[in-house]
Amino acid sequence: MADTMLAVVKPEAKAGAEIQDVKIPKFGPNEVLVKVKVASVCGTDVHIYNWDAWAQSRIHPPLIPGHEFCGEVAAVGDEVTTVKEGDFVSAEMHVNCGKCYQCRTGDAHICQHVKIIGVDANGAFAEYVTIPESNIWKLDPAIPLEYASILDPLGNAVHTVLSGDIAAKTVAITGCGPIGLFAIAVAKACGATKVFAIEVNEYRRKVAEKMKADLVLDPTTQDVKSIIMEATDGIGVDVLLEMAGHKDAIRLGFDVLRLGGRASLLGIPSRPVELNFANDIIFKGATILGINGRKMYQTWYQMTALLKAGKLDLHPVITDRIAMSDFSKGMEMLNKGTASKILLYPNGVK
Amino acid sequence: MADTMLAVVKPEAKAGAEIQDVKIPKFGPNEVLVKVKVASVCGTDVHIYNWDAWAQSRIHPPLIPGHEFCGEVAAVGDEVTTVKEGDFVSAEMHVNCGKCYQCRTGDAHICQHVKIIGVDANGAFAEYVTIPESNIWKLDPAIPLEYASILDPLGNAVHTVLSGDIAAKTVAITGCGPIGLFAIAVAKACGATKVFAIEVNEYRRKVAEKMKADLVLDPTTQDVKSIIMEATDGIGVDVLLEMAGHKDAIRLGFDVLRLGGRASLLGIPSRPVELNFANDIIFKGATILGINGRKMYQTWYQMTALLKAGKLDLHPVITDRIAMSDFSKGMEMLNKGTASKILLYPNGVK
Amino acid sequence: MADTMLAVVKPEAKAGAEIQDVKIPKFGPNEVLVKVKVASVCGTDVHIYNWDAWAQSRIHPPLIPGHEFCGEVAAVGDEVTTVKEGDFVSAEMHVNCGKCYQCRTGDAHICQHVKIIGVDANGAFAEYVTIPESNIWKLDPAIPLEYASILDPLGNAVHTVLSGDIAAKTVAITGCGPIGLFAIAVAKACGATKVFAIEVNEYRRKVAEKMKADLVLDPTTQDVKSIIMEATDGIGVDVLLEMAGHKDAIRLGFDVLRLGGRASLLGIPSRPVELNFANDIIFKGATILGINGRKMYQTWYQMTALLKAGKLDLHPVITDRIAMSDFSKGMEMLNKGTASKILLYPNGVK
Amino acid sequence: MADTMLAVVKPEAKAGAEIQDVKIPKFGPNEVLVKVKVASVCGTDVHIYNWDAWAQSRIHPPLIPGHEFCGEVAAVGDEVTTVKEGDFVSAEMHVNCGKCYQCRTGDAHICQHVKIIGVDANGAFAEYVTIPESNIWKLDPAIPLEYASILDPLGNAVHTVLSGDIAAKTVAITGCGPIGLFAIAVAKACGATKVFAIEVNEYRRKVAEKMKADLVLDPTTQDVKSIIMEATDGIGVDVLLEMAGHKDAIRLGFDVLRLGGRASLLGIPSRPVELNFANDIIFKGATILGINGRKMYQTWYQMTALLKAGKLDLHPVITDRIAMSDFSKGMEMLNKGTASKILLYPNGVK
Repeated sequence: MADTMLAVVKPEAKAGAEIQDVKIPKFGPNEVLVKVKVASVCGTDVHIYNWDAWAQSRIHPPLIPGHEFCGEVAAVGDEVTTVKEGDFVSAEMHVNCGKCYQCRTGDAHICQHVKIIGVDANGAFAEYVTIPESNIWKLDPAIPLEYASILDPLGNAVHTVLSGDIAAKTVAITGCGPIGLFAIAVAKACGATKVFAIEVNEYRRKVAEKMKADLVLDPTTQDVKSIIMEATDGIGVDVLLEMAGHKDAIRLGFDVLRLGGRASLLGIPSRPVELNFANDIIFKGATILGINGRKMYQTWYQMTALLKAGKLDLHPVITDRIAMSDFSKGMEMLNKGTASKILLYPNGVK
Repeated sequence: MADTMLAVVKPEAKAGAEIQDVKIPKFGPNEVLVKVKVASVCGTDVHIYNWDAWAQSRIHPPLIPGHEFCGEVAAVGDEVTTVKEGDFVSAEMHVNCGKCYQCRTGDAHICQHVKIIGVDANGAFAEYVTIPESNIWKLDPAIPLEYASILDPLGNAVHTVLSGDIAAKTVAITGCGPIGLFAIAVAKACGATKVFAIEVNEYRRKVAEKMKADLVLDPTTQDVKSIIMEATDGIGVDVLLEMAGHKDAIRLGFDVLRLGGRASLLGIPSRPVELNFANDIIFKGATILGINGRKMYQTWYQMTALLKAGKLDLHPVITDRIAMSDFSKGMEMLNKGTASKILLYPNGVK
Repeated sequence: MADTMLAVVKPEAKAGAEIQDVKIPKFGPNEVLVKVKVASVCGTDVHIYNWDAWAQSRIHPPLIPGHEFCGEVAAVGDEVTTVKEGDFVSAEMHVNCGKCYQCRTGDAHICQHVKIIGVDANGAFAEYVTIPESNIWKLDPAIPLEYASILDPLGNAVHTVLSGDIAAKTVAITGCGPIGLFAIAVAKACGATKVFAIEVNEYRRKVAEKMKADLVLDPTTQDVKSIIMEATDGIGVDVLLEMAGHKDAIRLGFDVLRLGGRASLLGIPSRPVELNFANDIIFKGATILGINGRKMYQTWYQMTALLKAGKLDLHPVITDRIAMSDFSKGMEMLNKGTASKILLYPNGVK
Repeated sequence: MADTMLAVVKPEAKAGAEIQDVKIPKFGPNEVLVKVKVASVCGTDVHIYNWDAWAQSRIHPPLIPGHEFCGEVAAVGDEVTTVKEGDFVSAEMHVNCGKCYQCRTGDAHICQHVKIIGVDANGAFAEYVTIPESNIWKLDPAIPLEYASILDPLGNAVHTVLSGDIAAKTVAITGCGPIGLFAIAVAKACGATKVFAIEVNEYRRKVAEKMKADLVLDPTTQDVKSIIMEATDGIGVDVLLEMAGHKDAIRLGFDVLRLGGRASLLGIPSRPVELNFANDIIFKGATILGINGRKMYQTWYQMTALLKAGKLDLHPVITDRIAMSDFSKGMEMLNKGTASKILLYPNGVK
């Protein structure tokens, strides 16, 4: 094995990224070295690339980004027992402390001291990445490589959809980025009877149609509230899955939510949101759930089971496959809005 | 409208039933008279026909049995506001008191003073049946007539399956009578990833296969526990849906239930059951739910939504369609075990 | 029995109210006429008296206000079966339709077509009031008259506190009007281990101390966040009960809520509220519950049980007892903030 | 520090135990050596002492028993970070594997590969005991030493009581050994409005009275069902906490459980139990929960919070305090039924 590897590197505190030849990372007795086969690009990576306000406040270059991937175990530390060289794996990239109140009471996904590989430490846009054994997720070879590389955002969708009852429910999804699009498939596979996908971007609406949303709506030209109210016998939707993180989407979502409905909020607004608490929450008797990451590791079991059972067709979301060396081209496509999920191949697309 | 109608009547306290010409039932100001289009036969009707111990203790002849049906509203009482002549309807046949603790706290389906139409009062194996307005369930004409006639047992299945989480779960169903068979379809439509159907009767196992259970098992010839343990990575199933009401099925069901699993029990054993509480419940950390009837009216909304969305293919369960006048033939088929769900047509099969 | 009675009347669309001699109300076959023994005054009654924007949009004079009371059954309609002349009763004043989706699925407290007696129809600030039988709550004579007159707001508190786990939890209550004060007692009776009461008004803070909040805090002079964080080992509170309906209180409440905590919102803001959804809801993994009215009738059973068991000492909240004829004086006290819960006696204080 | 220590030892596979001088246990890099200050005796220890069928099948002598204790940290392994010499601690003695399905989904208390210190490895009836850091529970010095020594069984009680709603509920507790007795205090502290304690043993009934059960009943001489039905307005209890592990207690418990009630089962029957599943579970719509151990570590936070808030008076349960060298006398008292919870002092009672 060579000493060095190719990696996407954010070398300093400014926009952009470079492909560099860097040292293959070391691993401790409880860690696993994984050879990355496919990685995928998240909106977070675009924030880091663009060096926006959030990135400036959080990221400490130099950094190898990337937190969505799958690969093959290349080597394991001395105390690792649950995984061995050659295993097909992905990983939960939120590394929790294991000792805070949340970690000790089943809420490790909201650990007080969480560190994210690919954000707070070197990540998976490289030929190799080091992962703690506890965070490795061993995969059945039956799961397609492409799906294995997107388990992180698929897990966000599964966690959001399954944070409350979904069977026999009507659902509005506001925002059709990759997670919103995955949520369409997950909701339908789990018994949702009508899924309304609401999205301002035409490119994304087209993908939402391919994902078989029952109704794809454009709030810039359509009276979304009237349409949904009519389609739900005047009741409104049982469940709102908010994936846009934009105040207009949030407000519209609550507008169409029924009395007593559930709103699971995953999209992250970049500034405070003004909402009519009286009508939209209190008189409505709404239940609102803040959704962060994936349940460790309930969500991973759930999505693995759904994938193995063939319940999810996610192909329409994967719009592009590029070599890792073309990383900057991928960033441009996402900045222009002409791609959904882009897969990166460290050793080139085969 | 004529004064009299044809009906199946249990005339006296002994086995059998007769087709009689009887008075069309009256209806009060809050009641609805429904012209029955299709009724369906339940195991309870067989107990009444055979005049077994349970029937002798509960039934007071003369009685028109029948509690699964759909039809058209023929007339409504003066104070009825939510339904009108010509509407396509079915009905919840458990009439609750509305005043006991359970009724006033959202558990009307386990009302202390419940009366069942077709058991405690004249039922739907007739040209007409009278139903309180509160119990009428108005149907979308999009729902097929055959499905509309089996909402009562389908509701049992929906209530059982959805009494806990089902998405991304593995499921064992013990007993493949009509409700167990419906449960296969409901569980899969709501995201169950593996459904094991366990049944001693060959006829029923064949229907279970048509319902697309992932694995249909015969406990008289197969090592069900080993097979399920292997198919679940040694963990056992997440969910047991007990539909047999037989001690062997119950014990086998608990045997294959995983630590921390959920057991929803619907099948009614005719005598006490001996179970290893220490291993099967306590050390296992199991959750056991007794399931009775259908949630009023949450279950009705759920099953209507699933049917309208086309999520359920129930046709394999409906094995026979006969004229109501052939009622006794239907009873014989069920006693022999050569039919699953039999539909009755008061005015003959068209 | 006389034909007329004394009542508080809002005669026309302007501020104020009058004591008038009016007809004793009629009652239908399913209704109950109650002789009011004690009524109590709610903030809503002050809005109606002051004729503020909300009142102008909702109230249609002439109206007898009043929706908190207890009394004795004076007469019952022909079809009433569960209550008789002489019974000691209170009532749920939210009259639900019984036919909408929410009513039919156990959520009658958020009925789409709810009418409130004392707001949308003549209420209890009178010698007699008419109530539908379904809404009558029969009381054990063991429950003190004064407590019986405040079940409506006590029910708000019970519903809010028990809308999630409370045993062994730390709790912040923002806003110490009567419902917030009741919530202190309810939370402690149900196992809350630390209750922080946060209130800007000195009069109310003093009552909060008498209600035995563990710590009573003034956000205008104290660093509430630091104090609570220190008192909770840096974790924050498990539960927020928001009773103020003011944006500052809401924001402070979310500030002190722990990761994964529960916020039950009852206080009604008069305008939209701006909140940092990213930090306060989403990253926090918070559960937010909009609370409206009282569960029908789960909450009523709960509060009756707590009162009968002697678990609640509510006396500090009842600051004043006046004759109904002094209604306007009561309004002035509440407008000045020099009273908490005021009881009204139709026939004078004895 | 000396090399050896006094300990209770089960030296070989037969009844009895000895006080021996043995080596102080070693500890690894992630382990903690605790100097035991107080230990307490569990029924399990009596089984081991008596060498009954269960003990014969599970225990591999030589063994130091004992799994309830508190003490002071004497030394810590190199990698221990959360606890240091001199800290006041207790411990969860169920050591979970951390890698099975249950451990990875928040159910570590029902780990597939659990080992119990004091059962499967040397325990706390000694001057020193070794505990993994993950299982150490650091205590506030405000918690009394005696209470700190009984957190294991108190945790069983807290887990059982809080496995469902308890506020404003009526409760039957069948079996008043120490855990049943603790459950009386916990239920009342968490808002239970009536607690019925059912116990055949007179000594235990007297302690139940001191624990302030609302009604203490003797099923050998009283008509428990009639008494409870009358005291609950004919409804039955909301919650059954089964702590006896005896078939008669289980059956009686279900007999008094209301329709839709919750039964949490902790007592472990030594053989299969026959129950009327039809009436006691299915028609009743009951929820039955198997309770094992304590939630790791939710239960520990809960009981610590309740103790620190002074919500629990447990003194009546602690009937005896003896020197560890008098272990065999303690066993005799428990075999005779003339003690409830016995505390052991390794260095003598002070």
